[in-house]
Amino acid sequence: MSGVSRAMSKFRLAVVQLHVTKVKADNLSKARRLINEAAAQGSKMVVLPECFNSPYGTNFFPEYAEKIPGESTQMLSKAAKENKVYLVGGSIPEEDGGKLYNTCPVFGPDGGLMLKHRKIHLFDIDVPGKIRFQESETLSPGSGLSVFDTSFCKVGIGICYDIRFAELAQLYSKKGCQLLVYPGAFNMTTGPAHWELLQRGRALDNQVYVATASPARDETASYVAWGHSTVVNPWGEVISKAGSEEAVVYADIDLQYLADVRQQIPITAQRRSDLYSVNAVQEG
Amino acid sequence: MSGVSRAMSKFRLAVVQLHVTKVKADNLSKARRLINEAAAQGSKMVVLPECFNSPYGTNFFPEYAEKIPGESTQMLSKAAKENKVYLVGGSIPEEDGGKLYNTCPVFGPDGGLMLKHRKIHLFDIDVPGKIRFQESETLSPGSGLSVFDTSFCKVGIGICYDIRFAELAQLYSKKGCQLLVYPGAFNMTTGPAHWELLQRGRALDNQVYVATASPARDETASYVAWGHSTVVNPWGEVISKAGSEEAVVYADIDLQYLADVRQQIPITAQRRSDLYSVNAVQEG
Repeated sequence: MSGVSRAMSKFRLAVVQLHVTKVKADNLSKARRLINEAAAQGSKMVVLPECFNSPYGTNFFPEYAEKIPGESTQMLSKAAKENKVYLVGGSIPEEDGGKLYNTCPVFGPDGGLMLKHRKIHLFDIDVPGKIRFQESETLSPGSGLSVFDTSFCKVGIGICYDIRFAELAQLYSKKGCQLLVYPGAFNMTTGPAHWELLQRGRALDNQVYVATASPARDETASYVAWGHSTVVNPWGEVISKAGSEEAVVYADIDLQYLADVRQQIPITAQRRSDLYSVNAVQEG
Repeated sequence: MSGVSRAMSKFRLAVVQLHVTKVKADNLSKARRLINEAAAQGSKMVVLPECFNSPYGTNFFPEYAEKIPGESTQMLSKAAKENKVYLVGGSIPEEDGGKLYNTCPVFGPDGGLMLKHRKIHLFDIDVPGKIRFQESETLSPGSGLSVFDTSFCKVGIGICYDIRFAELAQLYSKKGCQLLVYPGAFNMTTGPAHWELLQRGRALDNQVYVATASPARDETASYVAWGHSTVVNPWGEVISKAGSEEAVVYADIDLQYLADVRQQIPITAQRRSDLYSVNAVQEG
């Protein structure tokens, strides 16, 4: 590996576990400040949480929704450009054509919008006495996969509940993604039970890095997020993890290490494509 | 649910974490005794570990290999019939047509051979300084999936390294399996790192029960097994787990609980079959 490509095989990722409030302007200004802070610490990619500009709740989505471009994404574009970072803009409630989506906009170091991922799998669950939530009451689902390329590696995007569906991660891995990023806001029931397990499973099964960004926990909110934004390496180990409070956590994404893991346990080459396959039915 | 089907929705499973030695006759007689013990405790299904009649190692496989039927499977057939249990016979080195396989024979309560699963994914890994093993030096891979039906539920079988391949579990789940059984012998490197994570991931992603059976740990063996035979429920929780010593561990498989989990977090219905699918390429 040449000196240049070796240098490109490692980069710092920052996950911003933002404390989200009901005041959109405060959410935007604080997000902006923490993006700057993360970049000043050498991060080349910064990830914000799901619903970073709005409280999480079906009643809030219509009120906080924006078109893209709009106030929130204009801030993200400027923040990405001024800091020369890839910016995975968590998610915002997006309005388009009279419908609402839970949308993750991704910006490049030039400030350009690289893609927007609309949450494919809406969060509709009902665990009696614990948690009931029906995103589909106000949101529409996205209809496509979302991969973007960087100077380091390809990255696949999912939002929160999307992480429960192994096929999405498998397809991203097949497309060459070495990092999967899931802004998400698990709750106090599914958070302790499944948040870390899902991330470690996706990482190990596909031998990729997985990063998640949650809002900080706010016990006074109608939906209490679990927090614990995390980065997992391709061996399935947690290498960075926030608590429940607002924080920026950092992780070094090491693509040479990823290559080593894949050489040691070569499951990609060992898959029995004569017996099974995971296929994209339609490209988004 | 009627009284009859409610009764059939729950059954006791036993996992036998056998201490395997170099003396095949001892392995068989002890396995037989522990199957009897498990049945006496009310188990309707008993699972033995990978390579239960032979030390695990490519040099041992040719020496301990048998045809099916043969000495080991005749014992299993009798043990299943006399105890009226479904018996997942771990695995044995099988000789057939001049080739060797790592094969799991499954017997019904009438003593009949229901299927044999030949390990699909051979264990060929090389983690420098930790563990190098190449099953393919002496073994040939199987070429088919293995599902059997019981009076309780459908069951899918994999052997050890097969568990690393999510697609196998996904296909079993699509075929209606509610329990996946993996006789396996992880080692002192991959055991602590991945054994439980893989089981919990398979269980959660497919909302099924997962049971594994390992040989007990023998520090004097050339291949030291991790032990820790485990049963995981569809919520991803470990409900039963051995240590490193010889033991029989029990778990109640509750298909009503499984149905409840699937209703609470309905990922099967929510999968985006318009975007992706996991397919069998060829049936075994």
